[in-house]
Amino acid sequence: MIKINEHFAELPASYLFTEIARRVAAFQSSEPKADIIRMGIGDVTLPLPKACTDAMHKAVDEMAVRESFRGYGPEQGYEFLQTKIRDYDYKPLGVDIDLDEIFVGDGAKSDTGNIGDILSSDNKIAVTDPVYPVYVDTNVMAGRAGELLPTGCWSNIVYMPVNAGNGFVPELPKEDVSVIYLCFPNNPTGTTLTRKELKVWVDYALEHKALILFDAAYEAFITEPDVPHSIYEIDGAKKVAIEFRSYSKTAGFTGTRCSYTVVPKDCVGYGKDGREYQLNGFWRRRQCTKFNGTPYIVQRGAEAIYTDEGQRQVKDIVNYYLQNAKIIRNALTAKGYEVFGGINSPYIWLKTKGEGSWEFFDYLLHEKHIVTTPGVGFGPSGEGYIRLTAFNTHERTREAMERI
Amino acid sequence: MIKINEHFAELPASYLFTEIARRVAAFQSSEPKADIIRMGIGDVTLPLPKACTDAMHKAVDEMAVRESFRGYGPEQGYEFLQTKIRDYDYKPLGVDIDLDEIFVGDGAKSDTGNIGDILSSDNKIAVTDPVYPVYVDTNVMAGRAGELLPTGCWSNIVYMPVNAGNGFVPELPKEDVSVIYLCFPNNPTGTTLTRKELKVWVDYALEHKALILFDAAYEAFITEPDVPHSIYEIDGAKKVAIEFRSYSKTAGFTGTRCSYTVVPKDCVGYGKDGREYQLNGFWRRRQCTKFNGTPYIVQRGAEAIYTDEGQRQVKDIVNYYLQNAKIIRNALTAKGYEVFGGINSPYIWLKTKGEGSWEFFDYLLHEKHIVTTPGVGFGPSGEGYIRLTAFNTHERTREAMERI
Repeated sequence: MIKINEHFAELPASYLFTEIARRVAAFQSSEPKADIIRMGIGDVTLPLPKACTDAMHKAVDEMAVRESFRGYGPEQGYEFLQTKIRDYDYKPLGVDIDLDEIFVGDGAKSDTGNIGDILSSDNKIAVTDPVYPVYVDTNVMAGRAGELLPTGCWSNIVYMPVNAGNGFVPELPKEDVSVIYLCFPNNPTGTTLTRKELKVWVDYALEHKALILFDAAYEAFITEPDVPHSIYEIDGAKKVAIEFRSYSKTAGFTGTRCSYTVVPKDCVGYGKDGREYQLNGFWRRRQCTKFNGTPYIVQRGAEAIYTDEGQRQVKDIVNYYLQNAKIIRNALTAKGYEVFGGINSPYIWLKTKGEGSWEFFDYLLHEKHIVTTPGVGFGPSGEGYIRLTAFNTHERTREAMERI
Repeated sequence: MIKINEHFAELPASYLFTEIARRVAAFQSSEPKADIIRMGIGDVTLPLPKACTDAMHKAVDEMAVRESFRGYGPEQGYEFLQTKIRDYDYKPLGVDIDLDEIFVGDGAKSDTGNIGDILSSDNKIAVTDPVYPVYVDTNVMAGRAGELLPTGCWSNIVYMPVNAGNGFVPELPKEDVSVIYLCFPNNPTGTTLTRKELKVWVDYALEHKALILFDAAYEAFITEPDVPHSIYEIDGAKKVAIEFRSYSKTAGFTGTRCSYTVVPKDCVGYGKDGREYQLNGFWRRRQCTKFNGTPYIVQRGAEAIYTDEGQRQVKDIVNYYLQNAKIIRNALTAKGYEVFGGINSPYIWLKTKGEGSWEFFDYLLHEKHIVTTPGVGFGPSGEGYIRLTAFNTHERTREAMERI
């Protein structure tokens, strides 16, 4: 008899965006003429940089001719892209990464989701609260979460609240944890850690032989000098951290799919007998067995980000969204709201003046015709907050702020 | 302390293609002027069909303009492609598949590898021997394999030999198994099952409430009328089978990455308490949580396969390789070798005249300067066979056969 993975049955239906869609649809049918501005979902709107589309056209042409056609590529990505990543994303930070520590993938969601394959199911997981749901759901699927509590939290996961009270800096867990998910600049709060604050976590991981899964998907939005672009800027991090990066928000690749994951050869895990194993080899084996590489055409598109025009075009895109973030921050601050994020991030995290997340969501939808995301949807500590995104046009973003 | 998945440590290094590469390199350095013909690896060589590259150029142009830019797509694929799959790949077979039963992915390797996520680790797995290594290795990673025996087999996996002795038709397992991997047309042997022979397996699965994971990646190569193109041609299969298909060998997508998986809503698994669960919902949840869809540009390329020109161009490609297969079959048969496959498949499975697989591999490499794949690399029952692929040019294929 075919036995299912019972943990899938324990996972409640993904509620947040479905519920948002339901409420928006209900409002639309009651007020069909309302001009709704969408600032809820974290998807980009600007087209791909010209450098990327030029490179992809060229790659498509190569694939049309026998002499330049490419079949199976290396599962861990082409060296032409790995080299650019090493030289442009890490060398300027003073971080030396070897090519065989870079794994090109099809998205940070896949990689942060699949990384658990190489870890035992009895690791103790810690996440910030609020949190990107993929970290939690994938650990539920792998049987690391325990039971779902009435709070919406899982009994065996350690939640570390981040909120206005602690300046969005998570406290070290009191219990011994072995896998820590950190996403900075943070989704959903848009907040960051300084080098000194991040060092606390690297030191914890070194001391406890824990692993940090560092999601740097929003790295390109960093504007402040004291915010680390990579966890490897912190001494010792190579021994305890895997870093995930993505071209999704940087270069508009949400529908084009390219990312990469760095697994340093110094980074180790432990067997039951205490023996050390390189996680690099494990992840390589995982990728070679269950993945066949990112499309050649897409990798050529990503490579073009690192040309001079590519770098300029990507900066323009990021700046466009950051200007929206500034418009939102300024407008809401002027209106007396406490807002966070939006300086090193496309996300603005607004603290309501006492209303619950869903209550304030409904207020903005019904009174201002603006769609946002209720903070509580990302975890209990998100209650009393909403998330706004800077991915709309300048015009629509300004209009939304005028409505508020 | 971070605990590794111990099963990764149990998995021996992937030996086959590394060892082939080592022997070829050693030969090349001893005879640098030898003109080596490669018939080992299962990768295509003809360029992408023009219909596909035209469609991808158009899609790249769409991505370059704000109005037609596409961000996140549906994780399970765009409806434009799902509709074509339903109407062109299944309707002509008399098989009704709903759109929400079709999941577009980035490769059959990913999907056959990841499908185990939704299954309990205590299922009993059965594979044919020889076998595509991904089925076995991913089950080792998931802890379903038991211990590695001196034979190279795993203690908890049921191996079903296919060889000249049983006409390459596996026998039903004597033990009760719950997950059965079947790949037909088969990799590596190139052999097929008739509808009647496949029905035996569907009936077994229905009786034992087992699940068949049916890999139909080579379906496009079928030329004989009695060979089923889909397992759903067999009555009752929707209740017990998941089918994997790929554009890799069909349309030269090995470096472009697109595939799909069909999980019928009738197909169920069981909880510990015997409760039924739809595997469709589980796989949807898995994909929505750990995958963000196949690139828009690539899905448009795949869609173009279903245009009139696309269908013609793909048939030309497949016929080109099938002609090679025929050249190989005829030449080897004339030389007195027993050969299998190559009629509904790009793979030819040659039975040596008593030599071991590696011995015959070395003979062909050193004496004929031809690279093949030793059958024993796919499992113990592959001993005494080698695999040749039809993916070279007509000219080189003919030359190779003249050398033999």
